[in-house]
Amino acid sequence: MTVKAIGAYAGDKPLEPMDISRRPVGPHDVGIEIAFCGVCHSDIHQVRSEWAGTLYPCVPGHEIVGRVSAVGAHVTSHKVGDLVGVGCIVNSCKRCDDCSDGLENYCDHMVGTYNGPTPDAPGHTLGGYSQQIVVHERYVLRISHPEDQLAAVAPLLCAGITTYSPLRHWNVGPGHKVGVVGIGGLGHMGIKLANAMGAHEVVVSRNADEMAVHAKSLDFILNTVAAPHDLDAFFALLKRDGTMTLVGAPATPHPSPEVFSLIMKRRSLAGSMIGGIPETQEMLNFCAKHGIVADIEMIRADGINEAYERMLKGDVKYRFVIETASLAA
Amino acid sequence: MTVKAIGAYAGDKPLEPMDISRRPVGPHDVGIEIAFCGVCHSDIHQVRSEWAGTLYPCVPGHEIVGRVSAVGAHVTSHKVGDLVGVGCIVNSCKRCDDCSDGLENYCDHMVGTYNGPTPDAPGHTLGGYSQQIVVHERYVLRISHPEDQLAAVAPLLCAGITTYSPLRHWNVGPGHKVGVVGIGGLGHMGIKLANAMGAHEVVVSRNADEMAVHAKSLDFILNTVAAPHDLDAFFALLKRDGTMTLVGAPATPHPSPEVFSLIMKRRSLAGSMIGGIPETQEMLNFCAKHGIVADIEMIRADGINEAYERMLKGDVKYRFVIETASLAA
Repeated sequence: MTVKAIGAYAGDKPLEPMDISRRPVGPHDVGIEIAFCGVCHSDIHQVRSEWAGTLYPCVPGHEIVGRVSAVGAHVTSHKVGDLVGVGCIVNSCKRCDDCSDGLENYCDHMVGTYNGPTPDAPGHTLGGYSQQIVVHERYVLRISHPEDQLAAVAPLLCAGITTYSPLRHWNVGPGHKVGVVGIGGLGHMGIKLANAMGAHEVVVSRNADEMAVHAKSLDFILNTVAAPHDLDAFFALLKRDGTMTLVGAPATPHPSPEVFSLIMKRRSLAGSMIGGIPETQEMLNFCAKHGIVADIEMIRADGINEAYERMLKGDVKYRFVIETASLAA
Repeated sequence: MTVKAIGAYAGDKPLEPMDISRRPVGPHDVGIEIAFCGVCHSDIHQVRSEWAGTLYPCVPGHEIVGRVSAVGAHVTSHKVGDLVGVGCIVNSCKRCDDCSDGLENYCDHMVGTYNGPTPDAPGHTLGGYSQQIVVHERYVLRISHPEDQLAAVAPLLCAGITTYSPLRHWNVGPGHKVGVVGIGGLGHMGIKLANAMGAHEVVVSRNADEMAVHAKSLDFILNTVAAPHDLDAFFALLKRDGTMTLVGAPATPHPSPEVFSLIMKRRSLAGSMIGGIPETQEMLNFCAKHGIVADIEMIRADGINEAYERMLKGDVKYRFVIETASLAA
């Protein structure tokens, strides 16, 4: 099946309309009519070949929401007409310890929603900046938010789970004081989620005076900043046994942290990447229950290149979402 | 009271015999006739002013064992004639959360056994390279090893607790595979302790082929190397959710770790510093029960400068211990 998409033919070319093919819906597949797709910073890194190994044509997009248009014969968990989402993962080995633990995001054979290996043409996965997508049922999430919130749900599929997973893993809850560094697509979700989990959440400024107020007071820091920056200033805010978890991935390393920042208070520096499929479903249910969605600005597909430029300037509060109906025009 | 010691009058001078004064035994103090004192790498850093702030004269030594020679009127936990030890800590605020939690090592006002602030002459603490020491009872540990093992018990007071504390804190036990990086005074204790805790312990070589064998297989890495080195090679050995804890403190930072090393498997880099007083007692009891002592080479006090040179060449298996009776000669 041929569908319309928007993507790039090379790292130094703008995104442009293209026709791509989607595989037939197999026995365990779900066919999805995409309604909206969020625009993640990773999309820019990948499509511009700022990380190694981008394959072209590249169609980004892994914050996908829409409606089920077809299901395979063996699919039991989804049916035509359901509101569903697809995040960063469309396949994994399904056999390793990580997959068995529902942490497909850490599977060595995890297949990303775009630029991942697949037998389907053209040999690598193509993402959500398109009209339709076909995904194995395991990686399709149920959405129980009201339909009129659907566009604002899209960013939960990456920005939401990427912040929810570490907050849960490090047991953030009532009584905790949580710092969030970097208030963009991820950070603004981190604040909403930490708050809904009962924590006292704090936007961590990089202003030295404002930081001094929080010295040695935080239980956990969620650091969403993908640009290299001084980590020691943030360690100083952590209590004994506090952890700072990085969810942003800079193209070059951060300046090396001082070992004393860690050993003096038994602090930890950790990393976390997206989240597993079961916890993504848990996150969507949690957000529906607590009325949490992303703050978004809707764009047409042909506005994507301009949106990228604005994102690089930090000019978005806090996530662009493509209305995929605009691809048909 | 004046006692003999060996120490340095400046960072660029060798250690030499000196007379120092010890305070009278106060109501909560324990007077200790020192029998042996282990020689820690920190001693070299401090006495040579390789870390900031060394005060002179400097008498190092924080792996102290000996016999109680006097107790203050209010002392209940120790009596004259007991075998006891003193480690890296001789005072703390006794009121903060860290002290209340028995983690005096993380108290902001922790006073080190040497070079720490004290009202006693000369205004900073003087360590265990001396005949006697007077210490508040809270920081004096009971030793239940046989007396003929006393010299080899001395290194437990720093090398032992510095490795025991993180192994316990990160729940090392049966079924775990633990890597130990750096087989010196600390590392050789880490191996013995991890083994006694029931873990499968592995000496992590820096040979690439040998490291490849352990890729993604370790639950925990105890990194005792104090010289700056590549951490990413060791992260590659950790399973998902594995932690590498640094207990060595290099004078300059390690090369910055790749963020991807952390986020791809939700790994952590942590630090740990010595251990608290209750867990130091627990460690000594654990070692007595399991017959664990350090591997030592005994030296006379006047051999300390030569011992330092050998330590810097890695020529000791694995800890020098000063026989303090030699100070009297």
